[in-house]
Amino acid sequence: MIAEHNFYGVIAPVLTPFGDDGAPDAVRYLAHAKWLLAEGCTGLAPFGTTGEANSLGLEERIGLLDVLVDGGVDPALLMPGTGLCALSDTVTVTRHAVEKGCGGVMMLPPFYYKAVSDDGLFAYYSELIERIGDKRLKIYLYHIPPVAQVGLSVELVGRLIEAYPDTVVGLKDSSGDWNNTKALLDAYPGFTIFPGSEIFLLKGMRNGGAGCITATGNVNARMIRNVYDNWQTDRADDLQEEITSMRMTIQARPMIPMLKSIVAHFGNDPGWTNVRPPFLQLDAAQAQAGIEELTEQYGFELKAA
Amino acid sequence: MIAEHNFYGVIAPVLTPFGDDGAPDAVRYLAHAKWLLAEGCTGLAPFGTTGEANSLGLEERIGLLDVLVDGGVDPALLMPGTGLCALSDTVTVTRHAVEKGCGGVMMLPPFYYKAVSDDGLFAYYSELIERIGDKRLKIYLYHIPPVAQVGLSVELVGRLIEAYPDTVVGLKDSSGDWNNTKALLDAYPGFTIFPGSEIFLLKGMRNGGAGCITATGNVNARMIRNVYDNWQTDRADDLQEEITSMRMTIQARPMIPMLKSIVAHFGNDPGWTNVRPPFLQLDAAQAQAGIEELTEQYGFELKAA
Repeated sequence: MIAEHNFYGVIAPVLTPFGDDGAPDAVRYLAHAKWLLAEGCTGLAPFGTTGEANSLGLEERIGLLDVLVDGGVDPALLMPGTGLCALSDTVTVTRHAVEKGCGGVMMLPPFYYKAVSDDGLFAYYSELIERIGDKRLKIYLYHIPPVAQVGLSVELVGRLIEAYPDTVVGLKDSSGDWNNTKALLDAYPGFTIFPGSEIFLLKGMRNGGAGCITATGNVNARMIRNVYDNWQTDRADDLQEEITSMRMTIQARPMIPMLKSIVAHFGNDPGWTNVRPPFLQLDAAQAQAGIEELTEQYGFELKAA
Repeated sequence: MIAEHNFYGVIAPVLTPFGDDGAPDAVRYLAHAKWLLAEGCTGLAPFGTTGEANSLGLEERIGLLDVLVDGGVDPALLMPGTGLCALSDTVTVTRHAVEKGCGGVMMLPPFYYKAVSDDGLFAYYSELIERIGDKRLKIYLYHIPPVAQVGLSVELVGRLIEAYPDTVVGLKDSSGDWNNTKALLDAYPGFTIFPGSEIFLLKGMRNGGAGCITATGNVNARMIRNVYDNWQTDRADDLQEEITSMRMTIQARPMIPMLKSIVAHFGNDPGWTNVRPPFLQLDAAQAQAGIEELTEQYGFELKAA
């Protein structure tokens, strides 16, 4: 028995703006989040990989969640990333998200130690869930082996669903491997599965997926949403093809700095290009080339916040 | 010009004991640290990979450092691991270590994001050092690509030494790749380089190394120290061969749980076997087999704290 889910559609892992002093910029952050919802996002995933979440300190993450919720974003639409390396930190951030009323949390496995067993990962999630001990906790597992290296096998996902059907309700699959997404969709019908890229949006929907959680939702939410809204129409394949091409153009450059450059360019707000080390800003020429490709090939336009 | 170093010899990355409630056990921790120094360790590296540091929360790490220093361990002998994923958390923990008077800190690169550039990593260390802004800060870079995945190239190490000669004073090389250690030793004579395993202790000493920082120092410090003390004698190769064999026996099983089982066995203290997820305890039979191999083949004996 799998619990009913409340997330679906197009969810953006919100970019995190930084001031020139390197601190997260609360004003730009809140404005961007609200603008994403206005652009058609059906939910937001603050503190994903795209949001440079693992370059944010524990207190910064907690502070930025407060900025969103206290700033008027409906917490039911929020699925913040709360999976840190250490169980105790993960408990702290997750508990805060639950208490703020977040609709769910997106949860990385502990990612420092490699080659850990499924039993060990199961023990981690299990201890986390018991320690939080709150029925409101809804976990979306975050499978992103290209970055975290530690992933969640199809079997482990099944064990977690079986043990905690009211808590472990969904998954974001950022493996980039359609076969893995398909295996999950086939194995756990009713479980809420989001491919981690709009490239698999239509394929996902045709196989029981819930939408997508995608980095480029930060700049292209309207068009991705349009595919989601029209996936059962005969225009679906053409629409999908277009967003796939745009995605390829954007990800041809370092993704996170490129997305920030796009927001900066269309919002006429150069401060948006700041990133936190170990990332570096794109140099201006590289960013400009990407933006020209988008505007010339796709008439891409963005009215940023 | 490379600053004079104050770490040398055999340094143990201190194991972290956990109570049955999963919390770090301050009493066992302090006792173990003092015992390691009595056994011949010339320094301690709390919060290394072996110490399950990346399963410790931010506050737990700070609290355990206080346990050691306030409990009477000379902070000049401590090189705590303070490199977390996020610059801001790293600053918090590092500043605390400096203020407690630690002789140095062992610093992982930010390890969540992969395929980051040397320029990005340089920017990270650079911003960290500027933010701490304290002459007492002595950084030992921590290169452990098999686990962190993100490593420090020989070139990047050189750039950091050149930019911060009084701060970036050493490195622990846990690559397991002697060629990398040798390249570092050749490139930066006078820089304090510790192989991350006693397997390379003698080779390292013969090439200008400073000793070793090794997980098995938690159970075999006396014999490893004996190699360090006798590296210029004609017994050196035989002594080295013996500690290498013992190391191979220990690491034939999952290393951290095995080390804890050894401490538990010889200290007659079963509580020492607790680990934190994602690790799992060794099952009793597996632990017993490892301990028998050590005692029967090497007459291994340990009078734990």
